Amino acid sequence: MPRILHDLACLDDRRLSPYCWRSKWALAHKGLEFEARPQGFTAIPRLYDGAHRTVPILDDDGHVVADSWAIADYLDARYPESPRLFEGPAERALCRFTEAWLFGALVPLLMPMLALDIHDHARHEDRAYFRESREQRLGRSLEAAAAGREHRLDDVRAALNPLRLTVQGQPFLTGERAGYADYIAAGLMQWVASVTTLPLLERDDPVVAWLERVRDLHGGLGRTSPMYAIAV
Amino acid sequence: MPRILHDLACLDDRRLSPYCWRSKWALAHKGLEFEARPQGFTAIPRLYDGAHRTVPILDDDGHVVADSWAIADYLDARYPESPRLFEGPAERALCRFTEAWLFGALVPLLMPMLALDIHDHARHEDRAYFRESREQRLGRSLEAAAAGREHRLDDVRAALNPLRLTVQGQPFLTGERAGYADYIAAGLMQWVASVTTLPLLERDDPVVAWLERVRDLHGGLGRTSPMYAIAV
Repeated sequence: MPRILHDLACLDDRRLSPYCWRSKWALAHKGLEFEARPQGFTAIPRLYDGAHRTVPILDDDGHVVADSWAIADYLDARYPESPRLFEGPAERALCRFTEAWLFGALVPLLMPMLALDIHDHARHEDRAYFRESREQRLGRSLEAAAAGREHRLDDVRAALNPLRLTVQGQPFLTGERAGYADYIAAGLMQWVASVTTLPLLERDDPVVAWLERVRDLHGGLGRTSPMYAIAV
Repeated sequence: MPRILHDLACLDDRRLSPYCWRSKWALAHKGLEFEARPQGFTAIPRLYDGAHRTVPILDDDGHVVADSWAIADYLDARYPESPRLFEGPAERALCRFTEAWLFGALVPLLMPMLALDIHDHARHEDRAYFRESREQRLGRSLEAAAAGREHRLDDVRAALNPLRLTVQGQPFLTGERAGYADYIAAGLMQWVASVTTLPLLERDDPVVAWLERVRDLHGGLGRTSPMYAIAV
């Protein structure tokens, strides 16, 4: 039985999910082959008798693990002989902080700007579900949330300062070699790049150079899905 | 010869420097006794023939190391049998990210709000130097920078979201046990608490509970200097 990672897919087989990106890079980091099987938003509840509401879901030869953190822990425990995702508990805990930074400082800015783009790239059968659930969260229409978004570019760029300052001093968040913190942060940028019809960054931004380095890893895994240019 | 950490001191022996706090906690983390010797801003260039412009400076039985990162690396190299500050290169690199988050997202908000308070707590002989150098950096008077600062509290609290989200899920940034990332972040909060005449946080903020946990460590080292209440 093959190793399958169920992966969120939009139109043109765009792979949107930041959580799935980190799990795909985690599998590659450990040298494990896998099939990233595309699933639409509304197809997920039909997998495994509806046991999981979100992807990624890893099916490792019949052993099913859902949730990106559970998958990372499973991979380090099941394949201890492969390169570890976490050198120890402190690195794992600081990856939680990296995630909290993204979801505390960046996603609240980005979600209103990108929700309409995500809708427009979702599979046709997923669009009604996506619009309804996201407009409820945003408290307004997707169109209203995106209005004037070009005036919020400075805020987005400023919010990326911590990442920018870090990768000016070292190639990756985890130093000379990329690690799970990079996969978390780059996963979010892949989410952005999958759908954004408005380039958010400047071409010479060190964040862009870092993202290109992460995309190059593991045989260019980060380039195996259609992406927009994230920078002008 | 004793082990001395030259430490920035203000009026009432307030220990202000976020960089010195992290080095003091680093020494305590490794179980090393030391004297935190107070120095005013303008006294630093008179130490060691003016070899260093900033503190912390560690004088370890005549071996002198300046800069908090160099001190941390020195301590792990010189005292490998004591608890390590970094479990490996990834933790160290992610501490750089923690620092970049603080100095990229929080300090630019806090510095204008607190520079006048710092001035007012500096030793009398340090005030002219402090005012001139900081007004040059801020591009305005200390008083103008602080004006209306109470209207910027929401921005400060929002900027702390990544730390807040993290310590809601785990006791410390580095997980179950405090680590150098906690010392970096708590050092900045000690800098704030040393001088702020305006409480910045709400009493029930998880950031406050986390700071209290860090202050409790190593025999309550974080309470060995006068502090204002950081929360109302």
